[in-house]
Amino acid sequence: MLKPKIECEYSSLVSTEWKPLPEGFGASGGRWKLLHVSPESGSWTAAFLYPKGASVPSHIHVGPGEYFMVRGKLEVRGGGDDGGVTATAPCYGYEATGAIHDETLFLEETEVYMRFQGPLQFVGPDGQTVAVVGWEQVQAIWDSA
Amino acid sequence: MLKPKIECEYSSLVSTEWKPLPEGFGASGGRWKLLHVSPESGSWTAAFLYPKGASVPSHIHVGPGEYFMVRGKLEVRGGGDDGGVTATAPCYGYEATGAIHDETLFLEETEVYMRFQGPLQFVGPDGQTVAVVGWEQVQAIWDSA
Amino acid sequence: MLKPKIECEYSSLVSTEWKPLPEGFGASGGRWKLLHVSPESGSWTAAFLYPKGASVPSHIHVGPGEYFMVRGKLEVRGGGDDGGVTATAPCYGYEATGAIHDETLFLEETEVYMRFQGPLQFVGPDGQTVAVVGWEQVQAIWDSA
Amino acid sequence: MLKPKIECEYSSLVSTEWKPLPEGFGASGGRWKLLHVSPESGSWTAAFLYPKGASVPSHIHVGPGEYFMVRGKLEVRGGGDDGGVTATAPCYGYEATGAIHDETLFLEETEVYMRFQGPLQFVGPDGQTVAVVGWEQVQAIWDSA
Repeated sequence: MLKPKIECEYSSLVSTEWKPLPEGFGASGGRWKLLHVSPESGSWTAAFLYPKGASVPSHIHVGPGEYFMVRGKLEVRGGGDDGGVTATAPCYGYEATGAIHDETLFLEETEVYMRFQGPLQFVGPDGQTVAVVGWEQVQAIWDSA
Repeated sequence: MLKPKIECEYSSLVSTEWKPLPEGFGASGGRWKLLHVSPESGSWTAAFLYPKGASVPSHIHVGPGEYFMVRGKLEVRGGGDDGGVTATAPCYGYEATGAIHDETLFLEETEVYMRFQGPLQFVGPDGQTVAVVGWEQVQAIWDSA
Repeated sequence: MLKPKIECEYSSLVSTEWKPLPEGFGASGGRWKLLHVSPESGSWTAAFLYPKGASVPSHIHVGPGEYFMVRGKLEVRGGGDDGGVTATAPCYGYEATGAIHDETLFLEETEVYMRFQGPLQFVGPDGQTVAVVGWEQVQAIWDSA
Repeated sequence: MLKPKIECEYSSLVSTEWKPLPEGFGASGGRWKLLHVSPESGSWTAAFLYPKGASVPSHIHVGPGEYFMVRGKLEVRGGGDDGGVTATAPCYGYEATGAIHDETLFLEETEVYMRFQGPLQFVGPDGQTVAVVGWEQVQAIWDSA
């Protein structure tokens, strides 16, 4: 049985550099900072910086996700005018287990911090699973960038 | 925001009937009882009854799993003689986030209760994802059986 | 960031010895086996063996708890005849976050496996907190017994 | 069994008003916005705004906590010069299960978003538990303010 020390982990967002996001994960010039992984529970936390017009491909949140958008604007499922959500910073968002995001589109340059419980399941146009990206995958992507 | 009543949920394992497991999930005559789903966190709990010689196809635990084996015997990754684990009832097992089970083989008729945090990711021979089965999928399978 | 190996943890319930429960936790001759602690998420799992007539003092589940009762019978909040629950083995039970158990009484010798998400908060007759018992406390109790 | 709709929850931080924090929780003029509660898992998320010189009384994180500090500066356990941590915005912090914060002191006006898994356990000078504050308690405080 593990016995971690009682401790805190602290990351300055100034000294942590932005790295480019890999194509499949979120394209169009997005960058990110991996802030934390929890190997035991499978949660992970990152900051993302997307340019205006960027988007995240279709994915399912297989566990709950929570985000704080510091600046910018995004829409999911067509935005608020089309039955989806348009989120304008500063804001907080909760994505329920099973939430399906056909595409997340950034309407302005957007900086957002997000905590994921479990992996993201990216899905293709026919509903097939393209990738299941959890703490191990993001850690490997981060380490190799 | 949800405000559930403070309550308990109780399932007699005598009065809950065994239902046949669907082919893809776990073949060879296995049966199950869905005991609980947690839609918010994505965890779910079930009892499984496998005949001797049955097996569960290759899968990844994308979140931690814990089981109590009441009777029987199983092996994962070739069993204890081949670098894997052979579990003999009565026993407790913990499957870490990311645990890969190439095949779980039941060496005797086995009854096991298991709690899953998040979905099971079934994978094919080339590592491709065949199915991601979480609380919604097991609930749907249970309701339609 | 931690990077645990992908692994399983397995405990034979035959070779793990029963230890006496400390007085405050659950009195009257109860015994237990600590099966797992998850230091990161704060969950822990144990087996309990209570003689007929034993009871667990008043406590609050500050996170969800799930149990499998292998044999025996227990009642909470006065039992099924008094608005509470009477659980008869074999059964499964789910205790919701915030569930208040004024007293858990064992009507027969009872063996139960339980997973706790977070600590148990034991409360006194005036509602004051007597102890908050999580993974660190149970690990220390186990190691010192 | 619950079957929530697949959905998102979105809170504009502009339109959600700041409310004063209750004395015991965090004194000295702090204000907060309750953003989310997860009754099932017991997690909750809030934004806090503390004036310079404010502090949070001694507490234990009984489950992991994660924060994003948008602006300001805080120190725990005496700060970085005394073996603790001094956090300067913008930054991210992770408080491990069991983390003990003798006092959290705000060196500047500080705005911080934080997600808590499970309750905060406030402790007095002799280590006695003063209060256990989870999703139900913060929801009740928020609704009554």
